[in-house]
Amino acid sequence: MSQWSLAQVAEHNSSSSCWVIIKNKVYDVTEFLPEHPGGSKIILRYAGKDATAAYEPIHPPDALEKNLPKSKHLGSLDTAGASEMTKARENKQKTKDELRMEQAEKEKPPLSQVLSVLEMEEIARKLISYKALMYYSSAADDEITGRENIRAFGRLYFHARVMRPISHCDPSTTILGYKSSLPLFVSGAALAKLGHPLGEANITRGAGRCGLIQMVSSNASLSYASIAEAALSLRTTHPNIPPTTLFFQLYKHKTDSIAIERIREVERLGYKAIFLTVDAPVPGNRERDIKAPFVIEAQEAEAEAKGGKEAPLVNKDDDEEISRTGTAGALIQNDDRDMSWGRTIPWLRSVTKLPIVVKGIQCVEDAVLAAEAGVDGIVISNHGGRQLEYSLPSIDVLYRLRKQRPDVFNKIEVYMDGGVRRGTDVVKALCLGAKAVGMGRPFLYAQSAYGEAGVVKAIRLLEREITTGMRLLGATKVSELVPEMVEQVSWEPLPAKL
Amino acid sequence: MSQWSLAQVAEHNSSSSCWVIIKNKVYDVTEFLPEHPGGSKIILRYAGKDATAAYEPIHPPDALEKNLPKSKHLGSLDTAGASEMTKARENKQKTKDELRMEQAEKEKPPLSQVLSVLEMEEIARKLISYKALMYYSSAADDEITGRENIRAFGRLYFHARVMRPISHCDPSTTILGYKSSLPLFVSGAALAKLGHPLGEANITRGAGRCGLIQMVSSNASLSYASIAEAALSLRTTHPNIPPTTLFFQLYKHKTDSIAIERIREVERLGYKAIFLTVDAPVPGNRERDIKAPFVIEAQEAEAEAKGGKEAPLVNKDDDEEISRTGTAGALIQNDDRDMSWGRTIPWLRSVTKLPIVVKGIQCVEDAVLAAEAGVDGIVISNHGGRQLEYSLPSIDVLYRLRKQRPDVFNKIEVYMDGGVRRGTDVVKALCLGAKAVGMGRPFLYAQSAYGEAGVVKAIRLLEREITTGMRLLGATKVSELVPEMVEQVSWEPLPAKL
Amino acid sequence: MSQWSLAQVAEHNSSSSCWVIIKNKVYDVTEFLPEHPGGSKIILRYAGKDATAAYEPIHPPDALEKNLPKSKHLGSLDTAGASEMTKARENKQKTKDELRMEQAEKEKPPLSQVLSVLEMEEIARKLISYKALMYYSSAADDEITGRENIRAFGRLYFHARVMRPISHCDPSTTILGYKSSLPLFVSGAALAKLGHPLGEANITRGAGRCGLIQMVSSNASLSYASIAEAALSLRTTHPNIPPTTLFFQLYKHKTDSIAIERIREVERLGYKAIFLTVDAPVPGNRERDIKAPFVIEAQEAEAEAKGGKEAPLVNKDDDEEISRTGTAGALIQNDDRDMSWGRTIPWLRSVTKLPIVVKGIQCVEDAVLAAEAGVDGIVISNHGGRQLEYSLPSIDVLYRLRKQRPDVFNKIEVYMDGGVRRGTDVVKALCLGAKAVGMGRPFLYAQSAYGEAGVVKAIRLLEREITTGMRLLGATKVSELVPEMVEQVSWEPLPAKL
Amino acid sequence: MSQWSLAQVAEHNSSSSCWVIIKNKVYDVTEFLPEHPGGSKIILRYAGKDATAAYEPIHPPDALEKNLPKSKHLGSLDTAGASEMTKARENKQKTKDELRMEQAEKEKPPLSQVLSVLEMEEIARKLISYKALMYYSSAADDEITGRENIRAFGRLYFHARVMRPISHCDPSTTILGYKSSLPLFVSGAALAKLGHPLGEANITRGAGRCGLIQMVSSNASLSYASIAEAALSLRTTHPNIPPTTLFFQLYKHKTDSIAIERIREVERLGYKAIFLTVDAPVPGNRERDIKAPFVIEAQEAEAEAKGGKEAPLVNKDDDEEISRTGTAGALIQNDDRDMSWGRTIPWLRSVTKLPIVVKGIQCVEDAVLAAEAGVDGIVISNHGGRQLEYSLPSIDVLYRLRKQRPDVFNKIEVYMDGGVRRGTDVVKALCLGAKAVGMGRPFLYAQSAYGEAGVVKAIRLLEREITTGMRLLGATKVSELVPEMVEQVSWEPLPAKL
Repeated sequence: MSQWSLAQVAEHNSSSSCWVIIKNKVYDVTEFLPEHPGGSKIILRYAGKDATAAYEPIHPPDALEKNLPKSKHLGSLDTAGASEMTKARENKQKTKDELRMEQAEKEKPPLSQVLSVLEMEEIARKLISYKALMYYSSAADDEITGRENIRAFGRLYFHARVMRPISHCDPSTTILGYKSSLPLFVSGAALAKLGHPLGEANITRGAGRCGLIQMVSSNASLSYASIAEAALSLRTTHPNIPPTTLFFQLYKHKTDSIAIERIREVERLGYKAIFLTVDAPVPGNRERDIKAPFVIEAQEAEAEAKGGKEAPLVNKDDDEEISRTGTAGALIQNDDRDMSWGRTIPWLRSVTKLPIVVKGIQCVEDAVLAAEAGVDGIVISNHGGRQLEYSLPSIDVLYRLRKQRPDVFNKIEVYMDGGVRRGTDVVKALCLGAKAVGMGRPFLYAQSAYGEAGVVKAIRLLEREITTGMRLLGATKVSELVPEMVEQVSWEPLPAKL
Repeated sequence: MSQWSLAQVAEHNSSSSCWVIIKNKVYDVTEFLPEHPGGSKIILRYAGKDATAAYEPIHPPDALEKNLPKSKHLGSLDTAGASEMTKARENKQKTKDELRMEQAEKEKPPLSQVLSVLEMEEIARKLISYKALMYYSSAADDEITGRENIRAFGRLYFHARVMRPISHCDPSTTILGYKSSLPLFVSGAALAKLGHPLGEANITRGAGRCGLIQMVSSNASLSYASIAEAALSLRTTHPNIPPTTLFFQLYKHKTDSIAIERIREVERLGYKAIFLTVDAPVPGNRERDIKAPFVIEAQEAEAEAKGGKEAPLVNKDDDEEISRTGTAGALIQNDDRDMSWGRTIPWLRSVTKLPIVVKGIQCVEDAVLAAEAGVDGIVISNHGGRQLEYSLPSIDVLYRLRKQRPDVFNKIEVYMDGGVRRGTDVVKALCLGAKAVGMGRPFLYAQSAYGEAGVVKAIRLLEREITTGMRLLGATKVSELVPEMVEQVSWEPLPAKL
Repeated sequence: MSQWSLAQVAEHNSSSSCWVIIKNKVYDVTEFLPEHPGGSKIILRYAGKDATAAYEPIHPPDALEKNLPKSKHLGSLDTAGASEMTKARENKQKTKDELRMEQAEKEKPPLSQVLSVLEMEEIARKLISYKALMYYSSAADDEITGRENIRAFGRLYFHARVMRPISHCDPSTTILGYKSSLPLFVSGAALAKLGHPLGEANITRGAGRCGLIQMVSSNASLSYASIAEAALSLRTTHPNIPPTTLFFQLYKHKTDSIAIERIREVERLGYKAIFLTVDAPVPGNRERDIKAPFVIEAQEAEAEAKGGKEAPLVNKDDDEEISRTGTAGALIQNDDRDMSWGRTIPWLRSVTKLPIVVKGIQCVEDAVLAAEAGVDGIVISNHGGRQLEYSLPSIDVLYRLRKQRPDVFNKIEVYMDGGVRRGTDVVKALCLGAKAVGMGRPFLYAQSAYGEAGVVKAIRLLEREITTGMRLLGATKVSELVPEMVEQVSWEPLPAKL
Repeated sequence: MSQWSLAQVAEHNSSSSCWVIIKNKVYDVTEFLPEHPGGSKIILRYAGKDATAAYEPIHPPDALEKNLPKSKHLGSLDTAGASEMTKARENKQKTKDELRMEQAEKEKPPLSQVLSVLEMEEIARKLISYKALMYYSSAADDEITGRENIRAFGRLYFHARVMRPISHCDPSTTILGYKSSLPLFVSGAALAKLGHPLGEANITRGAGRCGLIQMVSSNASLSYASIAEAALSLRTTHPNIPPTTLFFQLYKHKTDSIAIERIREVERLGYKAIFLTVDAPVPGNRERDIKAPFVIEAQEAEAEAKGGKEAPLVNKDDDEEISRTGTAGALIQNDDRDMSWGRTIPWLRSVTKLPIVVKGIQCVEDAVLAAEAGVDGIVISNHGGRQLEYSLPSIDVLYRLRKQRPDVFNKIEVYMDGGVRRGTDVVKALCLGAKAVGMGRPFLYAQSAYGEAGVVKAIRLLEREITTGMRLLGATKVSELVPEMVEQVSWEPLPAKL
């Protein structure tokens, strides 16, 4: 295999011949440019240069393998060039954002002092890069639905029952027949590597150790295989825990055959269910995510102006295409925009034997249609407020479904996600008929701040909150959580203590 | 034609003989004083002096032509006087407000980084003069209706539908039979020159380029002819776009014949409809607009006291008359205060063949009366909260109309304006039955900050928000937006992210 | 008549012999101590000393005449003593509060720039003494009702009617048959001299000049006669205005004969009606008023500690009695606590031929009882939130009365006060059936800041707001203001602009 | 009895032999370690050392007597050791928290200036240790129910009645047949010594002097006997007041015999009723309480880093067990988690003749069950928001009970606690049918700030507020407070003045 000098690579710096270096390997991506889900411009910015830092946190390691023919893997950078590159990276001025992160790492409290997932988020927000924070935290438009998902739980109060024996309390349940230690699962959330180098594997192992099921996103920053391996690795490190269950969150590609390939892959890897995402046929308008590069650019320019430092390389041109949709838009731009109950569900049934759950139901009418379409379950979800602004908060949709169509709960399993932060949130959803509840962002933050241990701690905290909530409500198993225990009030929740 | 020296002009400085200089021309306005819509005092302040700076941004260029007989156009300032005047203007101390604006101009972000019309407003607020800002932003009394117009949209949530093919989405519609690329039009808004020297022409050309219709205010700071010319100019600069449609927002003069003259003028110029303003027979109490001169005066006095600078000329006397109604009051003081359904609509029908739309409907009862009066359409509007404080938010009136009298939507076209800032706002109004939605202030801000390009950008941003909203709601054309997709909730919208 | 030296007076400094100096006159108040409505302790603080500064702003000039037998008017201070006293007063260190007031006076904006009574209040709050501010502004407990009185108007929105001729608009009405230029009267409010040396006379003359009726409080700081004189003086200074009407707000003394004496006095002086106060049989808990002396004391102690200045004389002892009820409590402690419909109204009817209005109705049931008791009118009022905390806002009581018992409006005249600050507030109350609306605090602030001229300006501003509101609602006289024009909404008013 | 040197004690510093010094006495607690309700780890932290400072404020003086066999009372510290110890304690660096408290004590306002229990709390919050504040003030999770308990009163408004004779007003009532001067009692609240060295005795004597009944917590920091003695001591110091009544708040131990022993003890001591706590079978998640040690540690570490001072001893290890439940958890960890209507109430009836009240009812259904179970009364309570987060505010449960099951009020006495801060709160609860109302935290704060005198002052303030409220409502005895006098409104209470 060939070796290339930095100078040689640098010559291929245009759309007619575009080479990039990733982890000291040289690739010819000229023909791939038009196919790149994130658009060609973002690649061309690194034409003839080292793209590792930008590439790594948002692509699974097998992305090049899967997408680029062997013939375009040109060889490696020669030793001199490679070490030059490394030195260059080491000598590079640290950005303001990197300096802030370093300081935050020093002030991070010990994990044992973290008392809630809200605190864990607060800590993680200080630790992660601005780009990661904006990707994780952003929601559509003015983030009304993003915030209301959380606040809506605040309008539900309990009718607590007393004088019931509660010394023994079992919060476990099953999801699609698979055992779960809590009525809780990890909801699909992309790009965990943005927050922590080990990425989704932190969540896989942390959840697995606690007996929780993970729904893996199509857009994970690790390959589906690596995640399956991480799950398997628990059999060695923690031989006493039961086997870990993984579900797959499918973003259906517009080309059926590519979608099928993806399904076949996860079937082979032992994933147990398909969660079909239906609320994101086009990207939501996540302004903070889109804006992040401008903000960083301005921040560094200001640092440069003040400190007389050499300015780090930042994007100066106005890239209309990327700016329109941000990270999120790039990830889904080849997804199927023309799914329908009549076509897509029968097709999916014909393709796989795995149970099918529709994720992204946002009103009562569609919950009914889903049940009629014969799926195994639905996730009431508005994508964490990241898609349609002013979509009703998920827990409010669940509430309406319970009031208007209680029959649906007998036909299919109903889950919800969006805004769950406390054990009492989980308990409320269960009272209203949810079989289990998904959480996404909290696990991204937990792994960003403390890796696998953070995920375990987050689950332990939630477990304690859930069991305390159940006991103080007078319930010892999830089936004892009933609608009569919850009342929707008309007043507004006050801002939380934290 | 004669030439006059500065000294000669300066002799005519009283109500018995009042001359003013405007753009180096000399005018005798003595006899015009009692007819000036803004009152005589404001003119007398400039008697015998150069009035250009005060005159220009709030009068159309043809105002003198139209209102002052040729015999009162006395001639030009002599060369020496003119160049002295120019020098004087150049040497004039800059006011604090002017210095602030200069600084803001330097810090203005590139247009490509602007992500919403809310941001565009935020930017423009820093760029424009205090006087312009107060005129644009003020609303009546405590500005409750002004703010509630916006907040009221926050109580409407979507029932989003999924699993519907939405790859093709067409947001276009017709308004009074004229094609519009979006269900959106430019609502009449006066005095665009206060924010940008090219004034309303920025809006005309920007809207025209995007296929939107502009409703031109009677109180535009450009002549109706100039605006029509700006529209025509697009045929040269942008030959591929379809012809631009203009509507006319009529403030009916109390003298019918003057009103007719105005209508005849716009008919000749090719305007396609008359939007009769009915919510402003007397001026609203816009305190921030009225207060602006006091604030500027105090600011300059303070600057003078601090810096030892020579104080710029500011108004020291207390002008009761002007202070009572501000800029707004001056503009409408000769309007018809005695319009009625029985008299005015038949009269207007007899005067013109153009379609007639009543702008300023604020309750269900009047919407019904309008339909019975046989007009072609109504604009539910409270004048952007600038007239009657505590008039119901427009979207709430639309909501009541839909619930109480859905038949009205079959008889006439119903539009609304007031508080529209996001694509989802437009979509909500359409779900409730609006044929199209007007926006006024956002276009004033857009042109103030970035001229014509700003208007184009604002429309593009709205287009993306509207189509994203439609798609994520499961709709591919405006006729698929139905009342069932919107639910009014009881809780309060949280303050917006920005 | 005798003359006394300072030293002679100083010997009578105890409860066994207590002399005080007021405006250079010497009084023996020993026997009056137990009868003082404000308690004896407050007098004993000045025993043997000059009490002018504390006495004057809160007592009518005839208080000594009325309450102290001639034999106790001992004579005057001798010239030396008097001039010494005057010098002492002049040389006295100014308190922090006095210095603040002096500075505020310098920064007071010209009256012509004041645009609303809200602004007038804002200005007055800076100008008046802390003690006055706390007396004027305080309300009971946590001041919930005090604030809600104002906010409650914010839940009422208009259904504005358009296309109605409104060039002529007449806001005048009658109150108990007496002409009023606006549907507005001055509601009884005590101690105007705390805010301005001319006290209530400012209000009398200001209101009279504008054709408004004043309801004079039993606890006015001018004598009822002086106020009547102030009203009469307008015939000289403003011969063209119609005669001024005064009403009397009766705080009924527990001893009927004393109450009768008071009624006889105002009858003789030409007052036209008795407004019997029924919501203040015991003092409300106005903490800010009660707390004021502690705050001033602490402020001066701090100033002393910092500046090394000699500390001004402040109260060091803990006066339980006064601290319990503040200024308000002192004023009403001899009032009748055992009034009843069955006893008090018939008695009052037997005592006077003047029309009787009951002031302080706080629920629908009592409005009905009042109508049955045969009074001429009621004022729905909770004493500006100064009595029972959590009494319903006045406008909400009016709203309930309109919905539940519209018949009451046909039997008696219904007025309201509490929280009225804007012309739209007045218009809303009239829509709901109020014959007229009272305002108290705003006039106290107006006269405090600008004397009589301030009162006139406040009324002119309100007049403009009322007529603008009526016109934009489509009404040209008060009888056209109807319940259908007002809708109560469920959402919260936002904080006001100011 | 033996004497021990410091060195000798220091040898017993492990779980195999654990001695501690408390008030110069030496104890062998090795065998007691597993039985300690707060867990063994917290004791082991002081193994071989002086534990006085940590032990004293949270244990009744008889705790060692009751729980440790005589044989483990090893003797006293020898004189040298004891005086060394005393010197060590005196020389110890003061912590930041102690310095803050000392300063606050200097700035404490005189008791006579305190006008409400809200102010008393505000003052106490500055005076007490951080640990005490966190224990007193904390509530579960985000403290929603903790805050809503208070805010919920803000949605209840009065229909005040006027023209009723109210000069005589008697607010007294009976509770379980025992006379109470106000419809108010001291609700059980633990660990008063954390705030003041005399602890619960301050409350006992203060309440007793005012004729109020105290409900003594099982977890009082004084022995039940000392509290009974404090009550008896009033007969000497205040011979004219009637005998004081004490009730007992029972936290039932999981072992019936231990529970019986506890009941027997309070029966012997003359307590008059058993209030069985049913809302705390497991500890609530009081994060601020749990977090307190971390915060103090961080604060001292920061002080050390800044000042170069020697750091005081703070806990460095991560004590999972204690951190999970805080002070609260330790207190109840041996309580009965399996109580039931069918078993526990009959058992308790069989054990004691005292009246039985169930404390901690949180919904209408359980109020009905309690009445059916034949108890004498219930306290509607959510433990001050310290147990189940999102339990309905107590006053809202009372409101629902009144609307849905008014019959319950005829069968048993209904009390409530939670969020009561003002006299109007008490009056509202009585209007809705409560026989009396409990207050806990306010008395803890009152005694912390001003000892016994603070408790007396708090009650006097409440008495004035209650009687003022009753009079202004038109009621002269508690039986005249009726549901018609209270209306629940839909709007939100504004934040309180303070």
